[in-house]
Amino acid sequence: MYSVNTRDHFMIAHSFRGDVFGPAQRMHGATYVVDVEYRRAALDEDGIVFDIGRAGEVLRRVLADLNFRNLDEAPEFAGRNTTTEFLARDIFDRIAARLGAGELGPGASGIESMRVVLHESHVAWAAYESPLR
Amino acid sequence: MYSVNTRDHFMIAHSFRGDVFGPAQRMHGATYVVDVEYRRAALDEDGIVFDIGRAGEVLRRVLADLNFRNLDEAPEFAGRNTTTEFLARDIFDRIAARLGAGELGPGASGIESMRVVLHESHVAWAAYESPLR
Amino acid sequence: MYSVNTRDHFMIAHSFRGDVFGPAQRMHGATYVVDVEYRRAALDEDGIVFDIGRAGEVLRRVLADLNFRNLDEAPEFAGRNTTTEFLARDIFDRIAARLGAGELGPGASGIESMRVVLHESHVAWAAYESPLR
Amino acid sequence: MYSVNTRDHFMIAHSFRGDVFGPAQRMHGATYVVDVEYRRAALDEDGIVFDIGRAGEVLRRVLADLNFRNLDEAPEFAGRNTTTEFLARDIFDRIAARLGAGELGPGASGIESMRVVLHESHVAWAAYESPLR
Amino acid sequence: MYSVNTRDHFMIAHSFRGDVFGPAQRMHGATYVVDVEYRRAALDEDGIVFDIGRAGEVLRRVLADLNFRNLDEAPEFAGRNTTTEFLARDIFDRIAARLGAGELGPGASGIESMRVVLHESHVAWAAYESPLR
Amino acid sequence: MYSVNTRDHFMIAHSFRGDVFGPAQRMHGATYVVDVEYRRAALDEDGIVFDIGRAGEVLRRVLADLNFRNLDEAPEFAGRNTTTEFLARDIFDRIAARLGAGELGPGASGIESMRVVLHESHVAWAAYESPLR
Repeated sequence: MYSVNTRDHFMIAHSFRGDVFGPAQRMHGATYVVDVEYRRAALDEDGIVFDIGRAGEVLRRVLADLNFRNLDEAPEFAGRNTTTEFLARDIFDRIAARLGAGELGPGASGIESMRVVLHESHVAWAAYESPLR
Repeated sequence: MYSVNTRDHFMIAHSFRGDVFGPAQRMHGATYVVDVEYRRAALDEDGIVFDIGRAGEVLRRVLADLNFRNLDEAPEFAGRNTTTEFLARDIFDRIAARLGAGELGPGASGIESMRVVLHESHVAWAAYESPLR
Repeated sequence: MYSVNTRDHFMIAHSFRGDVFGPAQRMHGATYVVDVEYRRAALDEDGIVFDIGRAGEVLRRVLADLNFRNLDEAPEFAGRNTTTEFLARDIFDRIAARLGAGELGPGASGIESMRVVLHESHVAWAAYESPLR
Repeated sequence: MYSVNTRDHFMIAHSFRGDVFGPAQRMHGATYVVDVEYRRAALDEDGIVFDIGRAGEVLRRVLADLNFRNLDEAPEFAGRNTTTEFLARDIFDRIAARLGAGELGPGASGIESMRVVLHESHVAWAAYESPLR
Repeated sequence: MYSVNTRDHFMIAHSFRGDVFGPAQRMHGATYVVDVEYRRAALDEDGIVFDIGRAGEVLRRVLADLNFRNLDEAPEFAGRNTTTEFLARDIFDRIAARLGAGELGPGASGIESMRVVLHESHVAWAAYESPLR
Repeated sequence: MYSVNTRDHFMIAHSFRGDVFGPAQRMHGATYVVDVEYRRAALDEDGIVFDIGRAGEVLRRVLADLNFRNLDEAPEFAGRNTTTEFLARDIFDRIAARLGAGELGPGASGIESMRVVLHESHVAWAAYESPLR
């Protein structure tokens, strides 16, 4: 199995509901450094998993929709705790939707699975991984 | 599959028996930077894999039992080489036992597998991963 | 010149005023990974710059006053942009005040200068450094 | 499953053919920081996955065959794009061949799979992983 | 003294002349991860050292002039060894020239010194630092 | 001012005397990842600060004298606490002595100062820096 990974980041404000969160129930924020790993069993005829330039561009676009926002006011997250693991899945879904819509060209059809990791500090990260389709 | 990871470290002395270890047969030591990754297929009703605060607290307690010790004198390791890979498994088992004993609350029952990584330098690490019974 | 450094982190929400900040004028947030470096010309009789355990404890206390807060609502920052470089200086001043008040014991009197670095992502950081008094 | 990982690096020049590569069609180069992870289900009688000293030595030898070269002139890569993912596989195969030839001693026969990661910058890496026949 | 730092990278091919370089006399290449630190004694009225967005943009432009090139064929480097330390100075000069030309706006006039670090692997880096003017 | 830096590591056991050290008074150990930075004002005729290959070789030799040892039994450290900051100075002196003895060739005579950093974990490091003579 081959993988390629591209990294970027975004910065948001949010708060959580639930006693389990302790002081994180207050309005606070985070920098999330995001790794997106694309996997497939065989390389294409150019010797690549996927056009890494396009992969970086797609990640930039996906994160631009989240960057510099207060997620508590984002309609798409109403009633949800935007925890690190929840956001890892949300970003996975946003990228998968763009892959499915053909926004990344025909080469992307070979991608079999993805893993999205959100690093929230030097001591904590969360991830979501899944086959595609 | 979702993951959350928490990091901490401990510092020990030890020596190894066996020609394969060369100069590491002498008394020496290591800083181990430890990553513990908890995995489950679905988030709970709070939108988390697990209470990351408790996860950090459990790791601190497990490492406190090992930190600032000469492992050659630890009764529980008598007759064993406390290599990096051996210690990764040992820490896995210590955390799994605390999970099983309910020390981490009912939420922990959803954890399906764990991966423990011990970084021993900027160029070497070892890991142990397994499903949780 | 000797240095010792201790690292910790905190997570806040804030927004900036001024066209120069572009989209960062919106409510957003950051994880700041903080390095505090203490410097002195000679080691004390124990062979240390400073009690690193106490240094870590002081940093934890200073960051606890900022962690999980919306800095836009913090009275001490009223009318100020809490940029990364501004916060590096603010944390420097908070630690220096505790050093000066003797909260860190007599050994701290030998500290000659400090450098505080705030990492806000994998590609950006800011710092403030100064002699003490 | 146990893992041990060893890291080293090499520096090469190359160029790519294909519109997908944009400016990387020009002669350029890269530093590749290489992680090789060896995996097996059980530790041997010494308490290790594998002699990590030998693992480091084998990696050094494999990378010495590639280091400080223009890969466009390497006969073994004629007609191929030496992308990061392609090179991850190539290094996997070179190490596997040495394992198979017994160059690493009898202990290596327990290795079940490997993962080779090539970090090409602070924001991009590629990998190849596979069971060993 | 305040600092802000921005990071980016570029990838080049080159070779060196001189026995001291050993196998690096052959055509090879490198990924350089570049840190540019801007320093000034006081913050401006917005609470910043410098518009970090513009700083990142300037670095991107400077590195675009070098990226994906064979430096042995670059007229501006004819007869020079483009070592890591040499390139750190070259990038320093390119950024300083843009600062001097006012390309970064009036705020940049407060910058007193800069430090440019080029990381060439996980074990080696070189730097050039100097006051401006 | 130009700098070049080379990194390596060593692993030792030791214990400390003095109440300030708390549990570190027990026999324990550490991995130290060592950075040695060499500084000079001008490059030599080859365009370098110093032969980085020789610099790496000298560091390897210096660390080989310390690696895989119990420092409590090292005659040269009798009666001393081998703290991280103490060891940073000790390694500085060992390298400076080799520079002074001409072991690194005539090019080393241009080195004006050095900085030695010992990383003991992901959250703590210590350093010693000084002009050379």
